[in-house]
Amino acid sequence: MKFEKYNKEGKTSFSLGTFATFELLNKRPQNAVCVLISSKLAETPHTKKLLALCKKLGVPVQTNDKALAKLSRKESHFVAGVFNKFGGTFCPNKNHLVLANPSDMGNLGTILRTALGFGFLDICIIKPATDAFNPKTIRASMGAIFSLNICHFNSIEDYLAASTNQKFFFMLDGTKTLGHFAPLQSNFDLIFGNESSGLPAICHKYGTSVVIEHSKQIDSLNLPISVGIALFEFSKHQ
Amino acid sequence: MKFEKYNKEGKTSFSLGTFATFELLNKRPQNAVCVLISSKLAETPHTKKLLALCKKLGVPVQTNDKALAKLSRKESHFVAGVFNKFGGTFCPNKNHLVLANPSDMGNLGTILRTALGFGFLDICIIKPATDAFNPKTIRASMGAIFSLNICHFNSIEDYLAASTNQKFFFMLDGTKTLGHFAPLQSNFDLIFGNESSGLPAICHKYGTSVVIEHSKQIDSLNLPISVGIALFEFSKHQ
Repeated sequence: MKFEKYNKEGKTSFSLGTFATFELLNKRPQNAVCVLISSKLAETPHTKKLLALCKKLGVPVQTNDKALAKLSRKESHFVAGVFNKFGGTFCPNKNHLVLANPSDMGNLGTILRTALGFGFLDICIIKPATDAFNPKTIRASMGAIFSLNICHFNSIEDYLAASTNQKFFFMLDGTKTLGHFAPLQSNFDLIFGNESSGLPAICHKYGTSVVIEHSKQIDSLNLPISVGIALFEFSKHQ
Repeated sequence: MKFEKYNKEGKTSFSLGTFATFELLNKRPQNAVCVLISSKLAETPHTKKLLALCKKLGVPVQTNDKALAKLSRKESHFVAGVFNKFGGTFCPNKNHLVLANPSDMGNLGTILRTALGFGFLDICIIKPATDAFNPKTIRASMGAIFSLNICHFNSIEDYLAASTNQKFFFMLDGTKTLGHFAPLQSNFDLIFGNESSGLPAICHKYGTSVVIEHSKQIDSLNLPISVGIALFEFSKHQ
């Protein structure tokens, strides 16, 4: 088996580093193809635990410095998991975090990690969007991706047709301010736009538009911060 | 005047890009040394406005492709501001955001921008810390640094000796959960530790330790997200 540079169109991706690889093995063992280790990997209780877990799960371990060097690029990782990419299933009766056209892999990873932290396990991503399976996203998510149900939609219209939940669209010209909602009686979706362009104005029509108030000294909060604040606030309603 | 690569020990730094350079000229004109522009800078209403502002303020403009290429590194910027670094003054009778040993420039910049957005203008940074004046930090802050009063302390003890405000230490083993405080009657400080190591346990002694509750599925929230959530929550008390 050859492990070349990550390819967006390919069927496999990689969890770089021990932490994310543990997440892969613990949460998505059925997707693990193999674990690559460096010939320089030190024998510690941590690495022993990793190798024992691979053995228990029947996941092959391969010493492959060349592949690791290729995959790691500027960083140097002594461990990488190889896994088959997986799809999600849209569950109408859950709360959703909806990301329309996120464009930055670091941001997306950070958001996925935060969503897991606040118990939002159902994520909708509206295309075009940055690649959720790129090793950079997976690394920024610290492996959170392996615990989440991530569905992709081709357009915001497709998503709107699928979800009957109460909807909160986060927009700079939102009509309600965050932090003043009565307890919610039903499932809800929190929807965020692209880092630069936000959500289209038409979204005002499809639900409640919400603004996270901030001073005029900045143009906008950055996307992961906005999502983090909203998830914190709405996690009180879960 | 020669513009070499940024030097942490030097007296000057650089705002890369038009946005941050406007912030420099509008908020800290007294610190602006000059503005470097590319020979390829397109003449738009935006760039005309920039050049007119330089003229009005008496800030020299220099076409210098070589210096811009050196400063921009991987990105390509057509505009950079050169400015003299500046110090802050500790104001005891203000609320403070206190960052103990932040180690990542991107995180620090994002936090500074968020602080400005929520009206926290007085920032304390406890050394050792990443460089607030590195162009990468300034870029991540989107020029917010020019609107903030940033004081450095050599140790947490020095900071504790200086501030008599009510103190909230954000710690994974905090004794209070965020979001359940009665309105505050006095000035307060919000204190955050390093990305990896957090705050030392001794902080429990010096004020209220606070945890932002999240599921056990993640180890911790990332630092800018935690700070963003806390600033949002406490901005209700300002």
